[in-house]
Amino acid sequence: MLAVMSTTTDRRAHVGIVGAGQLARMSLQAAIPLGLRVRVLAERADDGAALIAADVVLGSPNDPAVVLAFARDCDVVTFDHELVPPRCLEALVAAGVCLRPSAETMRLAQDKRAQRQVFAALGLPIPSFRVVSGASDVDDVVASLGRPLVLKAARGGYDGRGVWVADGYGAVRARIRDLTEAGIEVVAERWVPIERELAIMVVRRPGGQTVVYPLVETVQVDGICREVISPAPVPPGLAIEAEAIARTIAEASGVVGILAVELFVSGGRLIVNEIATRPHNSGHYSIEGCVTSQFEQHLRAVLDWPLGATTPTAPVVVTVNVLGGPDARDPFAALPDALSIEGVHVHLYGKAPRPGRKLGHVTVCANDAESARERARAAAELLSGAAVPQEANT
Amino acid sequence: MLAVMSTTTDRRAHVGIVGAGQLARMSLQAAIPLGLRVRVLAERADDGAALIAADVVLGSPNDPAVVLAFARDCDVVTFDHELVPPRCLEALVAAGVCLRPSAETMRLAQDKRAQRQVFAALGLPIPSFRVVSGASDVDDVVASLGRPLVLKAARGGYDGRGVWVADGYGAVRARIRDLTEAGIEVVAERWVPIERELAIMVVRRPGGQTVVYPLVETVQVDGICREVISPAPVPPGLAIEAEAIARTIAEASGVVGILAVELFVSGGRLIVNEIATRPHNSGHYSIEGCVTSQFEQHLRAVLDWPLGATTPTAPVVVTVNVLGGPDARDPFAALPDALSIEGVHVHLYGKAPRPGRKLGHVTVCANDAESARERARAAAELLSGAAVPQEANT
Repeated sequence: MLAVMSTTTDRRAHVGIVGAGQLARMSLQAAIPLGLRVRVLAERADDGAALIAADVVLGSPNDPAVVLAFARDCDVVTFDHELVPPRCLEALVAAGVCLRPSAETMRLAQDKRAQRQVFAALGLPIPSFRVVSGASDVDDVVASLGRPLVLKAARGGYDGRGVWVADGYGAVRARIRDLTEAGIEVVAERWVPIERELAIMVVRRPGGQTVVYPLVETVQVDGICREVISPAPVPPGLAIEAEAIARTIAEASGVVGILAVELFVSGGRLIVNEIATRPHNSGHYSIEGCVTSQFEQHLRAVLDWPLGATTPTAPVVVTVNVLGGPDARDPFAALPDALSIEGVHVHLYGKAPRPGRKLGHVTVCANDAESARERARAAAELLSGAAVPQEANT
Repeated sequence: MLAVMSTTTDRRAHVGIVGAGQLARMSLQAAIPLGLRVRVLAERADDGAALIAADVVLGSPNDPAVVLAFARDCDVVTFDHELVPPRCLEALVAAGVCLRPSAETMRLAQDKRAQRQVFAALGLPIPSFRVVSGASDVDDVVASLGRPLVLKAARGGYDGRGVWVADGYGAVRARIRDLTEAGIEVVAERWVPIERELAIMVVRRPGGQTVVYPLVETVQVDGICREVISPAPVPPGLAIEAEAIARTIAEASGVVGILAVELFVSGGRLIVNEIATRPHNSGHYSIEGCVTSQFEQHLRAVLDWPLGATTPTAPVVVTVNVLGGPDARDPFAALPDALSIEGVHVHLYGKAPRPGRKLGHVTVCANDAESARERARAAAELLSGAAVPQEANT
């Protein structure tokens, strides 16, 4: 276990979090009962976590000097996003900072090409893929993968950004040319019909102990997760297979902390999409919906403390994200109305409202999915000021 | 509802909390998902809530100038203890600060004599009592109430301080003389055999809407609450009567926010002991054990927002307090060991360890009381570094 000092005069941060968005914010909340001192590295003073943190360093996570200075007083450093540049990770490693997850794991999480190669080597179910070097590869790629094709930037994408579906030959060629000429590494994948999207979280301690959360359904619209339903309404066989996949990836990646695996169901079979090595939007339901939330669990893992139970606290848990509406209204204004709906747990992130931006989420624990979904949707709709699609599973 | 401004440039505090102990600390935790900005008034920089708050004012709650300056930027001011001097409350009222609960309610909560008089007027079950003016009242008091007697300082007591059981005539006389000569107002009460101690929380909005939490058992040792069991293992009739008592007191006191009623069972009947008008130690179980925690509920009430469901999340919830052991070890050191026990929720308050001081609590939700109690006690024992009495109901 990590040697953590604690005296009333010792103000050393137990945990440093690079990034100060909602994931850091909810991690801070989870750190309070554990008596942890957490420092966040925030780019802006009004970042969601910076607003509520007692210990904030303002600076860019892209500047090695800033990250090093931030980390100096931390027993362990973790991340609320994967987009920390390799040069910053290398500087931290060279300085002997305890990074969890490690720089190697972070590099895998940052690189969809490397993920595909690792998953293929592990024999995991993935779509056929090709690494694309330039426009000269187009004929070969189309011949081997067919059309339409999925093209992905190997790095930097999230919430649907960095992923394109191209159909016509000209469109595929143009997209590949534009990306590779811009210096963006591209992975081409066979397009598969998606029947359902799923996610599963696994958490791993440095010594290798892992625990797995229930398999959940994630309902996506335009590449952004709108709803999470736990447990996923799928045959038990898929849940067992998903757990095995999650454990395999956790072990292979050497992750310490939470790792989320995004999956598709296609033709009734699982396909691994990508991973995230941090608390994940698909796991927010665990704050009320599991004995141990993903945020507490991540802290426990990076401190090498015993992991907690992932048992659900209710038969069904539904989380609906609150996205900024077209008028970019602050969801705080509608909070009393949302709270008038029985049993809703509202989480606001303190972020400046912008259309389509994730501003919060609502969770409902219930005995049946319909009741939970209805109430969570109604509250999220009030908060976002926009109608949530009644049939959002696209 | 309270008009609460919210723009990203508006740094006005929505809620100010006078006091920065563990109740303020857990209130801050509850405020994060609600997107609230909370300011705390802390006497010391290492108060439990001051350690984790983004907005702390250091100063004495006994100084009207300090309290006024603190309150200036708050939409509503509430309290994490009742010991705010009347002159401070009056200064806040005179300045037009929105106090919830009100100064009148706080005065009742501060004054055990006034409570006895109000409860008597409401026809609530209380022990026979007499207000004691001085040593000359001793014959009369003993004649009317018998011996042993319970003597209480009308103000300032908590965790068993300010309460004495006196038996011999000389002891009664000496205690009354000492107290009254020191200028302490004294209430004498008939001693009743206590079979069980209970507590019930009610929360009230300014307009009068109230909701009630389940009746719980509180296991006390030396006047300090050691364990809370929800629901209390008592006949349903007592729970119904307790709820009626709680609603009656909430209405009569005009409380806004949480009000806890401490009760005795004597001869199978309920007796009202005293009240607290703030989140209460007997309600910590509600963080995991009810749909809405007492801390979130108190914030919702003082903001005049819709109240939340108080439904239990499990058949039985047990909370065991972590008291400082004789060697005043920091419970943080034993946290990994405590977390290795299945399903325990540990809450540490960040306070400097001292023997007997409340340093944290442990909650377990379970299907049966024995399993919950066993695990919560084991974790609390590890954290406090001292054995928790196996039969603590004294």
